[in-house]
Amino acid sequence: MKPDLNRRAVLSGLALLPTLGQTLLPAVGKAQGTVPLASWNDGPAKQAILDFVRATTDQASPKFVPPADRIATFDQDGTLWVEHPMYTQVVYCLERVPAVVAQKPELKDREPFKTVLSGNHEAMAKLSLQELEEILVATLTGMPVDVFDAEAKKWLETAKHQRWKRLYTDLIYQPMLEVLQYMRSNGYKTYIVTGGGQDFVRLYSQQVYGIPPEQVVGTAGGTKYGYDKDGKPFLTKEPKVLLNDNNAGKPEGIYLMIGRRPYAAFGNSTGDQQMLEYTGAGDGARLMMLVLHDDAQREYAYGPAQGLPDTKVGIFTQTLYDEGKKSGWTVISMKNDWKRIFAFE
Amino acid sequence: MKPDLNRRAVLSGLALLPTLGQTLLPAVGKAQGTVPLASWNDGPAKQAILDFVRATTDQASPKFVPPADRIATFDQDGTLWVEHPMYTQVVYCLERVPAVVAQKPELKDREPFKTVLSGNHEAMAKLSLQELEEILVATLTGMPVDVFDAEAKKWLETAKHQRWKRLYTDLIYQPMLEVLQYMRSNGYKTYIVTGGGQDFVRLYSQQVYGIPPEQVVGTAGGTKYGYDKDGKPFLTKEPKVLLNDNNAGKPEGIYLMIGRRPYAAFGNSTGDQQMLEYTGAGDGARLMMLVLHDDAQREYAYGPAQGLPDTKVGIFTQTLYDEGKKSGWTVISMKNDWKRIFAFE
Repeated sequence: MKPDLNRRAVLSGLALLPTLGQTLLPAVGKAQGTVPLASWNDGPAKQAILDFVRATTDQASPKFVPPADRIATFDQDGTLWVEHPMYTQVVYCLERVPAVVAQKPELKDREPFKTVLSGNHEAMAKLSLQELEEILVATLTGMPVDVFDAEAKKWLETAKHQRWKRLYTDLIYQPMLEVLQYMRSNGYKTYIVTGGGQDFVRLYSQQVYGIPPEQVVGTAGGTKYGYDKDGKPFLTKEPKVLLNDNNAGKPEGIYLMIGRRPYAAFGNSTGDQQMLEYTGAGDGARLMMLVLHDDAQREYAYGPAQGLPDTKVGIFTQTLYDEGKKSGWTVISMKNDWKRIFAFE
Repeated sequence: MKPDLNRRAVLSGLALLPTLGQTLLPAVGKAQGTVPLASWNDGPAKQAILDFVRATTDQASPKFVPPADRIATFDQDGTLWVEHPMYTQVVYCLERVPAVVAQKPELKDREPFKTVLSGNHEAMAKLSLQELEEILVATLTGMPVDVFDAEAKKWLETAKHQRWKRLYTDLIYQPMLEVLQYMRSNGYKTYIVTGGGQDFVRLYSQQVYGIPPEQVVGTAGGTKYGYDKDGKPFLTKEPKVLLNDNNAGKPEGIYLMIGRRPYAAFGNSTGDQQMLEYTGAGDGARLMMLVLHDDAQREYAYGPAQGLPDTKVGIFTQTLYDEGKKSGWTVISMKNDWKRIFAFE
């Protein structure tokens, strides 16, 4: 249930937490006509995608891949949607604390709940990783899966990112949505492979990305089968991690949930490194791409690679950059490769 | 990694173990024309399938299910193929012991390997459950996933069931293959949800059932990501169970791997009970079916329900039968409902 948390990563954005109670806006981020990759500037990144798809779908190509084998995997946070200043699901957990405490009043005066309730962001920034985990366990487990689904869905329909004053599900990258659509229109089965909670992402994956729940692989907790007082069976979310879908957990999760090696993989941080390595270790044509957040004006600029600030969320290290360069991975510059970032622009 | 083993279940068939070295026959069990359910006799079981599909696919029906939500799950052992006298994967593990010992000669004089190597079926029948687990761990884990795949595939291409002298993959039930095809041709996504090893079944699911690897949910072990001496990444099968896909593990596995409730579920034993309950607890039209092995002449007759022998493999208890009856589940009589059992007949 716990993403690969870094305390600084989680807390660095506490000061920027959105306030509640905004009005509901319709979702955006729809497909753009039929021109493939319309929001992409011409350049090596766009060309790499076009070349890969041509090489693997042209029957005359020596690198042709049968349709049944066409698997493409996409990290979510920082690759398909905004991950700053804080992972969206962590915002959810923190904002969920008041409701949890309302149900369990004994938590009101107990840490770390007391601090989160105080709204004192400076104090919240000092919470330990263990205390953060306690918050994740309290807000993501212990309830029937249907109850979790309903609560999280309701939140997703109203909570907003404070910079753009928009639903989190509006903050998906239009160029990446076009890649998803372009891959699918060429017979690729598109998967999300996220360090985030699998069941959280599954709530909106179809609507937002066109990806059905069963094609979302993520950090996943166990459930427990039981019966209610009328004998009706239901599943309860357990505080037990079955798959930590970060770093080496990504290829391990891909093997568990998909059972075969992707031909294309997209990421943006060290958490995606092993997924890209594993993808690249296959035969024939393979496409490995890394989104570089280098656009402070339209989105954010972060990551030590290329001298950008190290914010500890979505870490794009110099080591990752160097490995990618050596291994033939393609870096996507948000600043240079994307005509626009969001559909609402 | 370990199926829901019952010592008697596993060992009861030891005396019937096939011998090695038979010649390779082509796979059979292909689709039958375009008439749906051609190998089924008219009767309540066939009618239940036809009625369910009509109710959920006719747009005018109050029980219409959108194509994206059409999920059908099928147990494998005893539901899609023969499970007697022993689960096929357990036969694989026992027959794999000589190769494992050849690689690790120190096991030669150690139990339980010594007994398995002796070929003394009476002694093998006395192995404890713990010893059996040791055999499963030794034969199913510790190797790179690619090595396991190659070994198991090779075995599946040659090993034969001693009663029919045919490949195990030939021993699939033609009427159930027709159900899979009929459901798919009506927009249903078909899944195998098996207590057997997920990666074992994935090796032949596409070829034999038309079900891609990612639509096989089974008992699953962890893997570990690492690098070979050339720095190439690979996954090693670990002796750690992530999902025991039996009994309550079936709905839990469905939630983990599919993320939504099936509309139809097929099983044949108490290991499928919770999957059928969970399916039946959903709204609208749901189809729950149990294959009853009551045909000693063409296949086997077993299970305490209806006074058949209790062989402890694929247990169809009186309790299961009664719950099914109360809950509106449909029993499929192999003897009465199926015109033929196998495609090669």
